[in-house]
Amino acid sequence: MSTRTSPRRADYAALTRQAIIDAARTLFAERGFFRTKIDEIAELANVAPGTVYAVGGGKQGLLGIMVDEWASAPLLKESLERLPALRDCHEILALVASASRQVREDHGAVMRILLNAAPHDDTAAQGLRESTERYRGTLAAVAERMHELGGLPDGVDIRRATDILWFYFGYSGYFTLTDDNGWSLPEAEQWLLARCEQALLLRPAS
Amino acid sequence: MSTRTSPRRADYAALTRQAIIDAARTLFAERGFFRTKIDEIAELANVAPGTVYAVGGGKQGLLGIMVDEWASAPLLKESLERLPALRDCHEILALVASASRQVREDHGAVMRILLNAAPHDDTAAQGLRESTERYRGTLAAVAERMHELGGLPDGVDIRRATDILWFYFGYSGYFTLTDDNGWSLPEAEQWLLARCEQALLLRPAS
Repeated sequence: MSTRTSPRRADYAALTRQAIIDAARTLFAERGFFRTKIDEIAELANVAPGTVYAVGGGKQGLLGIMVDEWASAPLLKESLERLPALRDCHEILALVASASRQVREDHGAVMRILLNAAPHDDTAAQGLRESTERYRGTLAAVAERMHELGGLPDGVDIRRATDILWFYFGYSGYFTLTDDNGWSLPEAEQWLLARCEQALLLRPAS
Repeated sequence: MSTRTSPRRADYAALTRQAIIDAARTLFAERGFFRTKIDEIAELANVAPGTVYAVGGGKQGLLGIMVDEWASAPLLKESLERLPALRDCHEILALVASASRQVREDHGAVMRILLNAAPHDDTAAQGLRESTERYRGTLAAVAERMHELGGLPDGVDIRRATDILWFYFGYSGYFTLTDDNGWSLPEAEQWLLARCEQALLLRPAS
């Protein structure tokens, strides 16, 4: 019997864990990380408060789990793997725009929570530092590839190109357009891509 | 004697008040609003903790005073008053770029404190809402003037132009370039102006 029960138990444990993570993400996003209580997460996830500690490691643990989910998103790795094969800088920027939009769609809530909590919480600050390093590293690889292909304009070296990519596709570009201006994500993607092409390409599309 | 003593007392009171505000601004910016203690503000300002409450109204009161200083900056009013006389959209955008840089130079620390505290504190959130409304209102007046002058490209109405001005000259544009990328403020101003001209002018400078 145990061979049949164990998988079911494992499924149930995984479902419980996901329910707790989802509840925490929702509440952190709605009320803020600091104002959310463990009891509220437990209630929304329909588990006992002790389970939130045992399974999620409390609020700090849950935030860490969300950041890890974002860090291990296969999309980033896949995008980087596609880079060496691309020879057209327009195509490269289009890939950056669409991948960063997709990451925003999947992990935007966690980005916001981390950005909001980091100035006041050391664990969040550490998580943000690591995410930022990884994120900028990806954009630096893009800038390097564009430089290799001779696609950057005069006076724009790899460092400068990374800064410019960060301006358009780092944390604030999408959030300013969607949260402040109320644009849709596809609208923001299209506009950011066009603006970044103007700023960063030797031969922008006409 | 009292005619000579009163002005001196008033001077001393004003100096004390300013010392408290400056100390609070420094500590809020360095350690964050929530982690700063009244005792630390008192120590840095060289006054008794009770004086910080009496003169500044505690941390919330001090934050309010800083936001008011920023709101009443004469620069914003002066810039708006110059608008009707300007007939060249390049000149108008250059004014926006330089005024927003100057406000950043004078009140950037308070902007950061407010943006960081707002997700977790109702008073800060209210202050941020009011500042944002005023800030966007100024940019909307700019967009309206550009529209009047027929300087906006096809498909860009006043609302859209305000959104685009907000993208470049709202809160995040300068901060992304100076704080994240380490650019100087003059460098950021020049780059944002050039990019905004490309995005927003019917006839960008070549």
